[in-house]
Amino acid sequence: MIRRYFTRSTPQAVLGPGDDCALLRPSLDMELAVSTDMLVEGTHFLPNADPKLLGWKSLAVNLSDLAAMGAEPRWALLAVSLPDDCPAWLAAFSDGLFACAQRYGVDLVGGDTTRGPRNVCLTVLGEIPAGTDLRRDQALPGDEIWVSGQPGLAALGLAHLQQRIVLPEDLAECCLSALHRPEPRVELGRELRKRSLARAAIDISDGLLADLRHILERSAVGAEILLPQLPPMPAAVDPALARQCQLAGGDDYELLFCAPPERRSELRELAKQIDVPLWLCGRLVESTQANLRVLDTNNAEVAINPTGYDHFA
Amino acid sequence: MIRRYFTRSTPQAVLGPGDDCALLRPSLDMELAVSTDMLVEGTHFLPNADPKLLGWKSLAVNLSDLAAMGAEPRWALLAVSLPDDCPAWLAAFSDGLFACAQRYGVDLVGGDTTRGPRNVCLTVLGEIPAGTDLRRDQALPGDEIWVSGQPGLAALGLAHLQQRIVLPEDLAECCLSALHRPEPRVELGRELRKRSLARAAIDISDGLLADLRHILERSAVGAEILLPQLPPMPAAVDPALARQCQLAGGDDYELLFCAPPERRSELRELAKQIDVPLWLCGRLVESTQANLRVLDTNNAEVAINPTGYDHFA
Repeated sequence: MIRRYFTRSTPQAVLGPGDDCALLRPSLDMELAVSTDMLVEGTHFLPNADPKLLGWKSLAVNLSDLAAMGAEPRWALLAVSLPDDCPAWLAAFSDGLFACAQRYGVDLVGGDTTRGPRNVCLTVLGEIPAGTDLRRDQALPGDEIWVSGQPGLAALGLAHLQQRIVLPEDLAECCLSALHRPEPRVELGRELRKRSLARAAIDISDGLLADLRHILERSAVGAEILLPQLPPMPAAVDPALARQCQLAGGDDYELLFCAPPERRSELRELAKQIDVPLWLCGRLVESTQANLRVLDTNNAEVAINPTGYDHFA
Repeated sequence: MIRRYFTRSTPQAVLGPGDDCALLRPSLDMELAVSTDMLVEGTHFLPNADPKLLGWKSLAVNLSDLAAMGAEPRWALLAVSLPDDCPAWLAAFSDGLFACAQRYGVDLVGGDTTRGPRNVCLTVLGEIPAGTDLRRDQALPGDEIWVSGQPGLAALGLAHLQQRIVLPEDLAECCLSALHRPEPRVELGRELRKRSLARAAIDISDGLLADLRHILERSAVGAEILLPQLPPMPAAVDPALARQCQLAGGDDYELLFCAPPERRSELRELAKQIDVPLWLCGRLVESTQANLRVLDTNNAEVAINPTGYDHFA
């Protein structure tokens, strides 16, 4: 199975699939960034999920973790558990996985296949020049909060899929694409790191507020999110739902980062250069409690259900 | 959950659990050996499996892959899917995992926890001085086949557990320990690599013959296994069953390796030094078909069901 579906050339590896381990030669003066994510049928994807899209997404969500550190993606390993032999499923899944791998310059160097409930576990490895990584714990009061792209679309796509809402056709397509075929912000992470533009960064997998909270806790700061400065949400959707999806919907894989105000114009320039919308949507404040407030146009605090997506909620 | 059960100090990491990625600083002039293994409830362990033993084994089977390359274990990542919050299970599982990590000098640097059918996926990283790794594809005709320890005991333990046989108490304990608490042959792999004693190596996870076959295919050689030279099996067990377990039982995590005949005395010396029994049990021969023959005392070929444990058999 590994030979048939998961073995392609691995120019970046000393030794690829087929032995007890893969062998990699890390570059000089680089740190290694490593992350693992598990996607489970019934929790992260539906039994009838398109296997090609699932292959793409399984790798993409992991690359998003590398992007959030500013790392250069290099290698991946795949462990997959399947209830039965299903050549069509495997062929489509590996197609999607390799499409993402090729797009982001990743070699699939090893893995494991076994029998069981459908479960896909990817581990990715990337490289960062030592000491230049984007962590969660270096943000400071006074930093501005930025977010990329359109957080919330994936959650709208899911609501549409679950028939809790009905989206117009074009919008549905756009939201379903955000849900099923996320584009990890590798280039954005790389440029933030190279240009030392951000003091802290995270990818939004659990929801904007929930992930911002991780930065607040690790950096021991508070935050104010300014509702009017968030990206506009589609007019076709009930505003309250749109807001909830934008602030607490998961599965987005956009980057949220904190940068000093004096880097504002450089960030606006970067957004143009790499063609990724960046939204200045809040600021960090002194707070020993990692306090998080959401403010409306009149600077009045708005109550938001702060819960992001928690697999154990 | 990660904070409570899976966060301990990680002196070998630049950055441990709690960010998007772990950060590692590979040593100079070292290659990185990476491997991942997935253990699934119902396939690899029973629903009532002792979580502490399972924690140990999840890491141990991965370290066995590092051992088979001659790599020095350094770091691990854990992804785990669980059907519910179960503090007692998690506490015991993490106890077992960290016992194994401590025994072999591994830092748990990151991971993922999620909801779903019970599934444990470990990824391990080790280091090897560049170019000294033990692969599967470098064996030559004339090399002798060696195996460590007592392959077959784990399969006997499983048969006992499944009440297909009844073992005497002491023997049962020994076989169940081989099954549940395997000791990966890290020291043996390290010494084989350091002393350049083996040309090819593999760990026996699928069964002695099945794993030997991987070496034969990758090295394009044939082999003769000499039954009388295999380690003696317990007299309390039916000889045919004992033989079957020894040659085709999986889950052993002993090392099988190929070495030139002139290294025989050094290997016997090594066995004494590290207190690991090593058995010279066959030789490699010219064969374009990766032919594998099992011979008895009279040099007559014996028919053996050659199937090792195949999760998709």
